[in-house]
Amino acid sequence: MTRGHLFDPTFGAREVSATVSDQAWVTAVLDVEAALGRAAARHGLIAPEHAGTITAAAAELGAPGGADIETLGIDAAVGGNPVIPLVSALRAAVAVSGVPASAVHLGATSQDILDTALMLIVKNSIATVRQSIGACVDAGADLALAHRGTPMAGRTLGQQAVPTTFGAVAAGWTSGLLRADDALARVAASTSVQFGGAAGTSAAAHPYGLRLADALADELGLARQGIPWHTDRTRIAEIAGALGTAAGAIAKPALDITLLASTELGEVSERSPGGSSAMPHKRNPIAAVTARAAVRRIPGLVATVLAGMDHEHQRATGAWHAEWETMTDLLRLTAGGADRLAVSIGGLLVHTDAMARNLEITHGLLLAERVTMALDAHTDHAREIVTAACAAGGTLDTDPTITEYLEPAVVRRLLDPADHLGHAGDIVDRVLSMVHLRTGGRHDR
Amino acid sequence: MTRGHLFDPTFGAREVSATVSDQAWVTAVLDVEAALGRAAARHGLIAPEHAGTITAAAAELGAPGGADIETLGIDAAVGGNPVIPLVSALRAAVAVSGVPASAVHLGATSQDILDTALMLIVKNSIATVRQSIGACVDAGADLALAHRGTPMAGRTLGQQAVPTTFGAVAAGWTSGLLRADDALARVAASTSVQFGGAAGTSAAAHPYGLRLADALADELGLARQGIPWHTDRTRIAEIAGALGTAAGAIAKPALDITLLASTELGEVSERSPGGSSAMPHKRNPIAAVTARAAVRRIPGLVATVLAGMDHEHQRATGAWHAEWETMTDLLRLTAGGADRLAVSIGGLLVHTDAMARNLEITHGLLLAERVTMALDAHTDHAREIVTAACAAGGTLDTDPTITEYLEPAVVRRLLDPADHLGHAGDIVDRVLSMVHLRTGGRHDR
Amino acid sequence: MTRGHLFDPTFGAREVSATVSDQAWVTAVLDVEAALGRAAARHGLIAPEHAGTITAAAAELGAPGGADIETLGIDAAVGGNPVIPLVSALRAAVAVSGVPASAVHLGATSQDILDTALMLIVKNSIATVRQSIGACVDAGADLALAHRGTPMAGRTLGQQAVPTTFGAVAAGWTSGLLRADDALARVAASTSVQFGGAAGTSAAAHPYGLRLADALADELGLARQGIPWHTDRTRIAEIAGALGTAAGAIAKPALDITLLASTELGEVSERSPGGSSAMPHKRNPIAAVTARAAVRRIPGLVATVLAGMDHEHQRATGAWHAEWETMTDLLRLTAGGADRLAVSIGGLLVHTDAMARNLEITHGLLLAERVTMALDAHTDHAREIVTAACAAGGTLDTDPTITEYLEPAVVRRLLDPADHLGHAGDIVDRVLSMVHLRTGGRHDR
Amino acid sequence: MTRGHLFDPTFGAREVSATVSDQAWVTAVLDVEAALGRAAARHGLIAPEHAGTITAAAAELGAPGGADIETLGIDAAVGGNPVIPLVSALRAAVAVSGVPASAVHLGATSQDILDTALMLIVKNSIATVRQSIGACVDAGADLALAHRGTPMAGRTLGQQAVPTTFGAVAAGWTSGLLRADDALARVAASTSVQFGGAAGTSAAAHPYGLRLADALADELGLARQGIPWHTDRTRIAEIAGALGTAAGAIAKPALDITLLASTELGEVSERSPGGSSAMPHKRNPIAAVTARAAVRRIPGLVATVLAGMDHEHQRATGAWHAEWETMTDLLRLTAGGADRLAVSIGGLLVHTDAMARNLEITHGLLLAERVTMALDAHTDHAREIVTAACAAGGTLDTDPTITEYLEPAVVRRLLDPADHLGHAGDIVDRVLSMVHLRTGGRHDR
Repeated sequence: MTRGHLFDPTFGAREVSATVSDQAWVTAVLDVEAALGRAAARHGLIAPEHAGTITAAAAELGAPGGADIETLGIDAAVGGNPVIPLVSALRAAVAVSGVPASAVHLGATSQDILDTALMLIVKNSIATVRQSIGACVDAGADLALAHRGTPMAGRTLGQQAVPTTFGAVAAGWTSGLLRADDALARVAASTSVQFGGAAGTSAAAHPYGLRLADALADELGLARQGIPWHTDRTRIAEIAGALGTAAGAIAKPALDITLLASTELGEVSERSPGGSSAMPHKRNPIAAVTARAAVRRIPGLVATVLAGMDHEHQRATGAWHAEWETMTDLLRLTAGGADRLAVSIGGLLVHTDAMARNLEITHGLLLAERVTMALDAHTDHAREIVTAACAAGGTLDTDPTITEYLEPAVVRRLLDPADHLGHAGDIVDRVLSMVHLRTGGRHDR
Repeated sequence: MTRGHLFDPTFGAREVSATVSDQAWVTAVLDVEAALGRAAARHGLIAPEHAGTITAAAAELGAPGGADIETLGIDAAVGGNPVIPLVSALRAAVAVSGVPASAVHLGATSQDILDTALMLIVKNSIATVRQSIGACVDAGADLALAHRGTPMAGRTLGQQAVPTTFGAVAAGWTSGLLRADDALARVAASTSVQFGGAAGTSAAAHPYGLRLADALADELGLARQGIPWHTDRTRIAEIAGALGTAAGAIAKPALDITLLASTELGEVSERSPGGSSAMPHKRNPIAAVTARAAVRRIPGLVATVLAGMDHEHQRATGAWHAEWETMTDLLRLTAGGADRLAVSIGGLLVHTDAMARNLEITHGLLLAERVTMALDAHTDHAREIVTAACAAGGTLDTDPTITEYLEPAVVRRLLDPADHLGHAGDIVDRVLSMVHLRTGGRHDR
Repeated sequence: MTRGHLFDPTFGAREVSATVSDQAWVTAVLDVEAALGRAAARHGLIAPEHAGTITAAAAELGAPGGADIETLGIDAAVGGNPVIPLVSALRAAVAVSGVPASAVHLGATSQDILDTALMLIVKNSIATVRQSIGACVDAGADLALAHRGTPMAGRTLGQQAVPTTFGAVAAGWTSGLLRADDALARVAASTSVQFGGAAGTSAAAHPYGLRLADALADELGLARQGIPWHTDRTRIAEIAGALGTAAGAIAKPALDITLLASTELGEVSERSPGGSSAMPHKRNPIAAVTARAAVRRIPGLVATVLAGMDHEHQRATGAWHAEWETMTDLLRLTAGGADRLAVSIGGLLVHTDAMARNLEITHGLLLAERVTMALDAHTDHAREIVTAACAAGGTLDTDPTITEYLEPAVVRRLLDPADHLGHAGDIVDRVLSMVHLRTGGRHDR
Repeated sequence: MTRGHLFDPTFGAREVSATVSDQAWVTAVLDVEAALGRAAARHGLIAPEHAGTITAAAAELGAPGGADIETLGIDAAVGGNPVIPLVSALRAAVAVSGVPASAVHLGATSQDILDTALMLIVKNSIATVRQSIGACVDAGADLALAHRGTPMAGRTLGQQAVPTTFGAVAAGWTSGLLRADDALARVAASTSVQFGGAAGTSAAAHPYGLRLADALADELGLARQGIPWHTDRTRIAEIAGALGTAAGAIAKPALDITLLASTELGEVSERSPGGSSAMPHKRNPIAAVTARAAVRRIPGLVATVLAGMDHEHQRATGAWHAEWETMTDLLRLTAGGADRLAVSIGGLLVHTDAMARNLEITHGLLLAERVTMALDAHTDHAREIVTAACAAGGTLDTDPTITEYLEPAVVRRLLDPADHLGHAGDIVDRVLSMVHLRTGGRHDR
């Protein structure tokens, strides 16, 4: 009755599954309870040896094979969250060593534990996302450098426009991924503890409440909370927003790869294409396709998170519970998309011959803009003349309305794609220097 | 690394998990391959005994303990879907009995099998959703009948308005659920087979393609396809739309219950409320809360489905793959929300004393509309007079600007909630007769 | 400070703007108030001549130049909806003719009027949507018929698969549009009146409430309500769902057209392509592009509608208000997308030479499936042999591993696209007969 | 046929309408063209006097009454965006002064101009949003300070939990708004120019392309671009994300206010409540209700933006066009929600008597947690005892199972809400110091 094994590999979620699984939740909850015990001991609220006992018991319960997750799930339904039965189990486990029930879950409410556990999951999972995005950035930078001067057709609204280089295209992908990565780094650094007790006043831990919260943050390596944020979900929204941005930064190159890999364009292909159950000749860019599949599901999930920010009073009647799986889905799918894109870009074969061939398809029309600019010096009707010549479908260097002003050889030179690449190289250089700042020089030119 | 056990019970998804799990997908895929074998035999395209062998092998592979799902998932990633390795496994399994590879997956493409498998999953899961909605409808009708004449405060924009009855409220819930159920029944009845081969022309099965499709539908108890719908996802959108409507019909009573169960209103409570890890006095309406939590996640998922309808050419580069888990999440959460709501409504305790007490809070102001109507016969300034009297905060039967026209006793009678229930009873009756049509008389008055 | 003129034409919303504009709302609200007056007169609740006066005054106020919309908007903000000031204005307008205030808005609450007005807007706007979809269907059917036998490359995951025909492709577009149109017809037919008074019990109109509601429906040509549905938004969800389905059915051909019109494929182009501010040679398929732009915005709007179905108690604290502009945006953009698609498909130029040329690109590899099927009769290793031959990149009719079993001439015949079109023609015929049922024969073959 | 006047005031969008209207778009486009002229003159690419002429003509065309927006909209549809006809109009306007066509729109593509115009609109509109959020923050801080010690019932899952203070509640609202405001400030500061020419290489302006882009940024007061970002939409996503976060931060207090203002709770009310068309006694918290209505529409719009980040190649076939109205809707509705919330919080009446009364409803049960903690010192069964006592429904200070361990007077003291407020005051202080940092001391204690 479980889910995950069947589709995780296809959507790139094998690695991240370790930090978003049922087991990861249980481990995180118990890590938080253990840290709370130690934090309480720091402030002398419980005995240090009790904190040690709690930590050891939590580690055992939280490890695979510890708490039985199926039973736990059933018990969780009674109160509506898994913290209640896990606290009972932990209390029972430490009671035999003489630790009083009150030493466990001290001053906390379920939401304190679950929100903090979620932050641990977020932090761990974003690390996985960023590792894959880093691989994409490295591969993108390699491509940008290798193809800094490789001309290809620029395409706007599906039509060939003016030339660009494949290096500039790869640099553009990389730039978006770098920006998304910055946002992920920012939210990962601000994942903070939650500790406010039943109604957010930490009354049950008063006067140690706010200090206990800070000690808990220190124990877990999370940021401090400032004040409890039970029903202020701006932190959650920021995480979702950063994942949404990352998903879009992944979607862009994934889409381009599927388009450039199409039979007719044929400008790139994946090193390990996918086959078909019916067609032996198929070379599907399956890593890019499944990267797209993974990240297409992110925007709806982000909307769910944002739509659920209006938590009632001091704890929401449903909106909070709705975050749990939504956030893990967001993490899983963004990580998955990044992983699949890393496979795609990392193994991308670039067919420069096809790029050159495609540049010839229009017999130079994609440089019509340039002829217009040259004609501008001779006539006020440059744009009309060139537009008419293009519409006529012939070649510009033989069109008398143009050669009236410009020599055919001049026109032909104007129509050379390699001579109209503008700042494509500069763009590559700028992006490589951004990557350099991040990686310490591997992509320096 | 799996997901499901921890949160399924909390979100009401224990029962539906059997039809949306990894295992359910594998079983469904193999059921379709088996049915295709039998359909091919019907048309003489393969030997009948081969169809029998395929069916037996598919049943074995598709049963729990058959195909190893973890390995299958890994193999699926190569081509981007689990059909390819499952077909290989099935071919291998039947080869020992002399069934040629070509007898398995005859004329089909992976999408034929997966789309048809999804339709089986949809059909089975909607049956579960509808069972729970049926339980909600029954419970709602019971409440409507029992409280046909129980006055309570109507509330608009959070403020007490004019009275209604709890019966009318429950009838309103029931009416929405009935309408949603109709839509679910409609889409369940139209779940259809998919069979078009590699590019939707059924060339590999020509001239038997369309007939094979119809035979496959008959074998599986699904609707016929008309034409292949590989990249026409209107069917998928309709299913998502019906689930979205159902989610909203569930969300409405769930929200009302959490509001009516609030400490201050106290008009209903759940039979088995949830406790708190911190507060011993809590009686949380946890079934309604988790019903809300489940269905709040539906709108974003529906948007994902709709946003992915633009499948490219003859098979999409990602949008199709993105449907698989999205559709099972939609089914899981709608079923879960319905299950939790059935628990909530089915065990709802109605506190008529609290309803009566709350009707007194405004000392009759909630019937000011009625005094206005009575004053209308005497003055053109009825609304201004009553508005001023309400704003003054006193009681209307002692306000001289009113008693100038109406005797205090008359005003008091006008302010009796039980005397201003309008068509509340008729509304109950109309809904009960709708339920009656559906259930065959149990809720007849 | 207004919006609409600048982008309406680009997004195809010029025609529908008449039924979704501010003015359309004002007109609809006043049409409902007028109809309510006549319905009340039918039941003898107000004098017939008063109903006439109300109808005349409402017509005047509701016509362009009647109520000042800027002032009205400001007055509406006080109570949170425009009905309150419109009722005041209407009462003032009829007071001079001796019609009492109580004869206007009899038994109604603001939501009765606005919901019913929305239904009028929905009905009128869906008629516009359906007109454009009808034009798309007609154009699609024309293309399907004209190109019933025109071979083109089928493409899956961006790669050439096996051949299909452009007729089958156009038939697939048409089929999706027909199905979406059916759903629109269904929801348009069920747009119903809303009439329940302050808290949904029609107490203020008792005992005429339910009959008044039915009379109102008859006056307006809307469906009857059954019971008031103030906080049962399943009807609204169904409308949104049908528009969402339509949007997807529009998005599919629009995307295909942009892809097929790409410079490298060049298989279709629009009759009136768009130009560029920079590049004189551009022939952008701008109608398809802007159709896509319009309908891409639908899924998020549908999610907004669905997420807002949980209306509290007897009137929602925000969710209801959030529907107004969302629903008109949904109508505007679906109509707009349909209009732009009708322009695109209606003027589509089909380049059969390009289709033929593209079929040659792989030198027959796209028919590898067929060679495999033929080899199956001779060897158990057919798939492996053909896969290896494809991977080698040669031509299949000269590959010795294949010609060992099949004559080169036989292989060449197998590789003829025109000979492997399967049921493409049948698919066209089935769709044409569906269109025929709808249009009465224009597309009969 | 226009939209805006009718609903703008209700949804708080009157002020922001000036920066998101059709006219604002036209003005922004022409401001960008004028700045481009001046930037070109800075680099000696056009004559300084021509830049002056362009600036003057752009100002005239861009002012209300300049370009006819209705005609412009129609002309825009031809090429799919309004830049093309605006450039023609601007060229025509300056031609009479001898400015050559090539001096206008130098090196630019339509997307350069529209994206930069959008950034101007974003920057201006976020300023409006932030002004309203600032007003909310100020009002929230005033409430937090004034009610730092005002006890009220904390409520979790709709049930009274332990006490808090209204000051802490207001501080929580304020904290979320501050965090959202920080994010808005960050994205506003990074709104950057777009300038890349036809395919993003700035070939038409080479070798001045990147410098021209920087000069354009300086002219407009926008951030520099780094590299062109035509199809890297991470910037757009970040803006949408920040608006989404802000919407949630607005939604939270708006929802709380509608709940606290309910007739039964009665703890707050708005200074200028809304009336009803039917019920003279209604005092609807209409500003909070319409704030909710405005921001409920944000999540779906954010999803639309995120779902449209996969721009194809060097310019998207629809996804780009879909951003224009979506982004202005996001700005309009976030600004609107903030405006309405400022009205609501700014005029909030706090009914401390009702807060005190509601604290009495459970006869102290909401402090059961505290009795448990006290009992913990005496028995291992504290939680069971208190839970049973709560379930019995009596008062804890008379329950013998409790008074066996604790004196009734001790229990009564434990049940005093004012004595169990924990860190509520500290929370207020922390938030006030954050506000202090922002506003320079007005809210210092």
